[in-house]
Amino acid sequence: MSEHEVYMKLAINNAAAMKGQTVPNPLVGAVIVNQNRIVGVGAHLKAGGPHAEIHALNMAGDLAKGGTMYVTLEPCSHHGRTGPCAVAIVEAGIKKVVVATLDPNPLVAGNGIKILKDANIDVTVGVCEEESIMMNEVFNKFITTKIPFITMKSATTLDGKISSYTSDSKWITSEEARKDVHQLRHEHAGILVGVQTVMKDDPELTTRIEHGRNPVRIILDSRLTTPLYSKIVTDKQAETWIFTSQNFSQSAKEQLEALGVNVFITSGVEQVDLHDTVRILGERGVSSVLIEGGGEVNASFLAKQLVDKIVLYIAPKMIGGKGAPGFIGGLGIEKMADAITINHLDIMKIGNDFKFTGYPSYK
Amino acid sequence: MSEHEVYMKLAINNAAAMKGQTVPNPLVGAVIVNQNRIVGVGAHLKAGGPHAEIHALNMAGDLAKGGTMYVTLEPCSHHGRTGPCAVAIVEAGIKKVVVATLDPNPLVAGNGIKILKDANIDVTVGVCEEESIMMNEVFNKFITTKIPFITMKSATTLDGKISSYTSDSKWITSEEARKDVHQLRHEHAGILVGVQTVMKDDPELTTRIEHGRNPVRIILDSRLTTPLYSKIVTDKQAETWIFTSQNFSQSAKEQLEALGVNVFITSGVEQVDLHDTVRILGERGVSSVLIEGGGEVNASFLAKQLVDKIVLYIAPKMIGGKGAPGFIGGLGIEKMADAITINHLDIMKIGNDFKFTGYPSYK
Repeated sequence: MSEHEVYMKLAINNAAAMKGQTVPNPLVGAVIVNQNRIVGVGAHLKAGGPHAEIHALNMAGDLAKGGTMYVTLEPCSHHGRTGPCAVAIVEAGIKKVVVATLDPNPLVAGNGIKILKDANIDVTVGVCEEESIMMNEVFNKFITTKIPFITMKSATTLDGKISSYTSDSKWITSEEARKDVHQLRHEHAGILVGVQTVMKDDPELTTRIEHGRNPVRIILDSRLTTPLYSKIVTDKQAETWIFTSQNFSQSAKEQLEALGVNVFITSGVEQVDLHDTVRILGERGVSSVLIEGGGEVNASFLAKQLVDKIVLYIAPKMIGGKGAPGFIGGLGIEKMADAITINHLDIMKIGNDFKFTGYPSYK
Repeated sequence: MSEHEVYMKLAINNAAAMKGQTVPNPLVGAVIVNQNRIVGVGAHLKAGGPHAEIHALNMAGDLAKGGTMYVTLEPCSHHGRTGPCAVAIVEAGIKKVVVATLDPNPLVAGNGIKILKDANIDVTVGVCEEESIMMNEVFNKFITTKIPFITMKSATTLDGKISSYTSDSKWITSEEARKDVHQLRHEHAGILVGVQTVMKDDPELTTRIEHGRNPVRIILDSRLTTPLYSKIVTDKQAETWIFTSQNFSQSAKEQLEALGVNVFITSGVEQVDLHDTVRILGERGVSSVLIEGGGEVNASFLAKQLVDKIVLYIAPKMIGGKGAPGFIGGLGIEKMADAITINHLDIMKIGNDFKFTGYPSYK
């Protein structure tokens, strides 16, 4: 690992630690080195607060002068809530800036670098670039498309089942894996299930870990049959947004709204229109959605090619059964050669289970 | 790693390299060290040939005297085809013997050690014991039960499917994984499928790698509907044994036998009796069977708790479909809490795919 990478990885680690708390802003970390000593570290902590570079410059104080800054994202050039960081870097007397990746917004990419170069600062771009881009996969998609980054999560037995033929599913995975799911919820702005899941399990869909943030609860419910006594309607632990079709019941809508639920009507005639759903979510600032649906919800999102990432927990057990459901229902793809391939498939052990993460690539 | 382990691992590596070619004998390796130099290595190569200890003693010659022998299995005490190794070790003047594991046959376990100790040889037992036992998992089961060690192999998509809803399955896994399957066939004495697979795919069920040994082809066929023109009947590349039920057709039996196929009638009234099948295979010296069946054959063997090991290749792709089959059919287990757990689940990457191996533990 080069010296550059050592410092950039520290910047990335600090940035990544803030996952979930900078929304709608990206994760950014910065490190300032002067005469072979780290004189400042910083990370963006919260939208509206200082950028990572400013925190690091503040910590370094006079020692910033003549130093090298490592920053995971190109310093900004715009006068936003915290002023352009590129100008602050110039004013602090930084001599060299190492950047992991350019701004994902093509309209401003390169502008920050230009300010630095115009001030005769030595600039290097691309150190730990892939890691930095993946760390902000949510932000990168959302800033360029205004559609949330969508992660599909499921848990199956080794033979691919999400429940037995009698619909028993408690529990497939170990406690460690189930806890990891709550970390995932914490990191997402929204959590999505179908009304079937609400009726069958009456779930809370909250984040049950210490310091856990609750995502917005998003329910697909084409006819508004969500029970009024269900926890997501009554418990007030988090917002609940229900997306419906043209086939909704007006009286149910009024009752749900009276109980504080937001109801959104999509253009779908019989089924909820998923493109409308993600567009509306994006417009409302929901930058990431975790789908914890059953097989049919999963199949619909995959069919519309709306899933950006999958997270699959596989437990070391087998349950069998022709009629026991898998995590992707629907009709399925006709030919094996046309299957959705998963890129960058990564695997790690969590408790007794295996956690697969990857990125679907559609035919 | 201790000095003992270093030498024992060399012995294990030599032994394991002979996988498939020592049947019905176990894999055994031996190393002789004298004055800090390896003076002999040996492995059992073939039933009827010398045991590992004898090969190593021959290589060492006079240098065996005063040396230490590392051997993966307790030296034999019986006068078989090659005489008792324990006596040969004593006569060669070996001073110390390090053994990985005792003889799995409880009737003779310890007898070889006793001969060595009676001759004042220093004996240590248990170095790399688990590794040595697992290396001979086939032999260990067969010698004690006379029932073959049964491995269930399958290949699925990440969503647990062995084909699309249209039964298309070419190809789920990468070429590397498919080649690994041929290595598995090479290592097994028998390969088993249901007649449905024969009718659908007309497979050869042979080992298509260089120096590949062909296992006996075992077909479950309750009514003897195996087509007479199928490759397993006509190609003469390996033996074909068909197991049937009381419901078989006498004329089909005569036709198959005339073509060189062995037909075995089990006690099953409508379906092939699996306990009879494995007992007959054991009586005929088939010590290991690789099941490459479809979901129904797999489900039947699991229901009878006859599967000792599973090997599952999982490809990084998703095909979906409520009707697309998984690798375990049947009705399935009712409660998730009663699922078959997999012990010692191990995972490795092969090409683009993941290979899971593990040992079912039945409720």
